[in-house]
Amino acid sequence: MVIGSAPAAGSVGEVRTRYLDLPDPVRLDCGRELSPVRVAYETYGALSPRRDNVILVCHALSGDAHAAGVSAVRPEASTRDGFGAEDRDGTAGAGLGWWDGMIGPGKAFDTDRYFVVSTNLLGGCRGTTGPSSVDPATGRPYGPDFPVLTVADMVRTQRAFLDVLGIDRLAAVAGGSLGGMQALEWAILYPDQVDSIVVIASTHALHPQGVAWNAIARESIMRDPAWQGGRYHDTGRSPDAGMGVARMVGHVTYLSAPALGEKFGRRLQFADDLRYTLTEPEFEVENYLRHQADSFVRRFDANTYLTMSRALTYFDLARQYGGGALTQALTDVSARTLLIAFSSDWLYPPAASEDLYAALRSLGKPAELHVIDAPYGHDCFLLEERRQTPIVRRFLAA
Amino acid sequence: MVIGSAPAAGSVGEVRTRYLDLPDPVRLDCGRELSPVRVAYETYGALSPRRDNVILVCHALSGDAHAAGVSAVRPEASTRDGFGAEDRDGTAGAGLGWWDGMIGPGKAFDTDRYFVVSTNLLGGCRGTTGPSSVDPATGRPYGPDFPVLTVADMVRTQRAFLDVLGIDRLAAVAGGSLGGMQALEWAILYPDQVDSIVVIASTHALHPQGVAWNAIARESIMRDPAWQGGRYHDTGRSPDAGMGVARMVGHVTYLSAPALGEKFGRRLQFADDLRYTLTEPEFEVENYLRHQADSFVRRFDANTYLTMSRALTYFDLARQYGGGALTQALTDVSARTLLIAFSSDWLYPPAASEDLYAALRSLGKPAELHVIDAPYGHDCFLLEERRQTPIVRRFLAA
Repeated sequence: MVIGSAPAAGSVGEVRTRYLDLPDPVRLDCGRELSPVRVAYETYGALSPRRDNVILVCHALSGDAHAAGVSAVRPEASTRDGFGAEDRDGTAGAGLGWWDGMIGPGKAFDTDRYFVVSTNLLGGCRGTTGPSSVDPATGRPYGPDFPVLTVADMVRTQRAFLDVLGIDRLAAVAGGSLGGMQALEWAILYPDQVDSIVVIASTHALHPQGVAWNAIARESIMRDPAWQGGRYHDTGRSPDAGMGVARMVGHVTYLSAPALGEKFGRRLQFADDLRYTLTEPEFEVENYLRHQADSFVRRFDANTYLTMSRALTYFDLARQYGGGALTQALTDVSARTLLIAFSSDWLYPPAASEDLYAALRSLGKPAELHVIDAPYGHDCFLLEERRQTPIVRRFLAA
Repeated sequence: MVIGSAPAAGSVGEVRTRYLDLPDPVRLDCGRELSPVRVAYETYGALSPRRDNVILVCHALSGDAHAAGVSAVRPEASTRDGFGAEDRDGTAGAGLGWWDGMIGPGKAFDTDRYFVVSTNLLGGCRGTTGPSSVDPATGRPYGPDFPVLTVADMVRTQRAFLDVLGIDRLAAVAGGSLGGMQALEWAILYPDQVDSIVVIASTHALHPQGVAWNAIARESIMRDPAWQGGRYHDTGRSPDAGMGVARMVGHVTYLSAPALGEKFGRRLQFADDLRYTLTEPEFEVENYLRHQADSFVRRFDANTYLTMSRALTYFDLARQYGGGALTQALTDVSARTLLIAFSSDWLYPPAASEDLYAALRSLGKPAELHVIDAPYGHDCFLLEERRQTPIVRRFLAA
C-alpha cells in the first residue's frame, strides 16, 4: 500500500509492513503442525474488482516482506553501489525494498496494473513466525524446536495467507533463487490457481556443489559455541562469528570470479605495502568480506538462516513429485512459465533453467527461457533490472 | 633414502623423515630473522657424484616432507579411493607419500636417475620450524609470535638447507599449487642454480576469488574462540571447529562442481527419506565434508594453516619483482619451464599458466604449456599421474 502522498517517479513510495495471523494451523511436510502462524506482508498497487491482477513475489534466503518502496518505519534510503544486491537483500525493512528496481509504476511488475503481494517466508525473522518467535508451549523462542521446513511448507503458508485476503487466483508468482523455487512449487501444488510463474536464477534442484556450500555455511553457524544448540535467544550471546563466515561463503558464491576480480583485483589495503599480518585484512577483498559479514549478523537470525538454507537444499522437484523424473514432476503444471538465468551464475547455473525448459517443452507446456549474458553471477537477479524488465513485462502482457 | 629391502615395483619403498638444523638464521621478508630453524626432509634415489641430478619437490598448503614411499614410522598404507588426493595430501608422515604416484623408479620424477629431495616448508607443522615449534625466547610454542611468511622465505630456507647438503644446482624444482609457486620463486631468486622448473596447477598470483576463499578459511579459524588469539598450545583446546570449516571450504574449491556431482549427486544419507534435521547430514556430500573436516583437524596445526594460506595469497610475481608487470618479473629467469594446468581447475585456472607461458615466450625463454582436459578440479595435480608422467619425463629428459 502506498502511504506517501508524493512518491518518486517509478516508486511505490513509502510503505509499511503489515501482519496477519492465520486462522488455522499450517501442516508441515515433517509431519508437525504449526500454530499460531503470523505472516508479515506488504502490498503495492491496487487489487482489481475481479481480484485477477495479483502477483505474489517471493524472497530469497535472507530477504523479507519489504520488496519495494521506502520503508515508513525506518525511512532512510539504502545506498546502492555497484554491488548493492547484498545490501538491498539485506536492508530488511529499512530503506529501499530488495526488489524495488522491479516493482513499481511502469516497472517489470507494474503496480499501475498489478496488485503485488510480498510476504516474509515461514521460518523467517522479519515478522513471520520463525525460530525466533515465541513457542506457545514454552513461552520462549522456539530456537531449535522450530520445525525443519520445506519450500512446500512456505508455499502452503502463502496459500493460507492469500485465502484470508480473499485472493484465490494468482496472475503470477515470481521470484529469484529460493524465490523461484517457490514459484515452481506453486505451479505444482496449485496448478489451477496460478496463471504464470516467473522463475529467475533458480533451479528445480540445487546442484551438489551448492548443497555443499550451504552445508558449510550451516556448519559454520552450528560450530560456533555461541549458537548453543540453537538456544542462544535471551542468553546475551549469538553466533555472530559463525554467521559471519556463513555470509562470506554465501557472498562469494553469489558473485562471479570475474566480477570479484573487476571490483577488487588483488589490490592491497595499503597500496603496495604488505603489513605481514594474519589478523588484519591485507587485500581490499578481505576487508569487503568482513564488512559484509558484520552488517549481515546485525540484521539476521542464525536459526532462520539454518532453516532457509536447509529448505532450499531439500527442494528437488524430481524427487518430490516425479519419482526421480523432472518431466513427471511437471506433468500437471498449467501455468505459463518464464525462466530467466544469467550466464555468469555458477550457484544457480543456466543449465538448471535449461533442464526445466526442456522438460516443460517436452510436455507441450508454454515456456520461455532467457539466458542473459551478464557478469555479476547469481546476484544478477537483483542487479540486472534493466534487462529483465522488458522480458518480464512482455511475458506478463501476453 | 630407501630403507626397505624389497620395495614394491615403482615404489621407493620404506622411507623415514630426517631433520637438519640450519647453521644460520633465516632472514625473512617481514624484516625479522628466524633462528634456530630445523628442516624436516626426505630423499629418494641416489645423489650423483657430480651432484647434478637433484630435483627438489615442493609441497602444497597442507603437505609435508613425506612425498613418496611408505613411511617407516607409521607403516600402514593409506587407502586411495577415487578422491584420495585429500587423504594423501593429508596422511602426513603415515602411509604413502602425497606424490607417490609421481616419484619413484620409472615414474615422472624417476629415482633411478634423479636424487629427489622433499622438505617440509618453513612454517610447517610436520618437523620443520613453524608456529607450533618452541620459541627460544619464551620456551613455549611461538603461536601468533611466529613471523608471517612469504613464499620467498620458504624458498630461501630450502636454499639454506640444500647448502648444508652440499647441493648447489638443481636439475629441477617441481610442485603443484603452492608448490608450483615455490618453483617459480626459485627460478627468479636463484636463476643460475635452477636448470628447470615444473609448475603444476599453479599461478603467478592467486586470483581475487582465491584470495577470498583463503580469507574465509582463515577467518573461520581465527573466529573460533578456541583459537585464543593463536595461543591455544598447551591449553588443552584447539580451534577444531573453525579448522573443520576451513577445510570444508578448501575441499570444495579443490574439486570441480561436476566431479562433486558425479561422486555424490544429490543422494540422501537415508535413501529417499528426509529426516528433517539441521544438525545431522541429510545428503551424502554433507557427510563426506564432515569426514574430511574431522580427519584434517586431527593432523594439522591451525597456525600453520594460517601461515601457509597467508603466504600463498601474498605470492604475486608481478608485484614482487616486476613493478606490476609479469614479463618484467620473469626477465632474469633462465630455467626451462614446464607448465601444466587442468581444464576443470577453477582455483588455479589454466588462464594463469597461459599468462606465464605468454610472458616467458615473449621474453624468448624456453617454456612448455600443457592444459590437460581432466574433470577433478585442482586436485588433478595429485590424481592425474598417468597423464602428467609422460609430459614430465619428456621435459626432464630434454
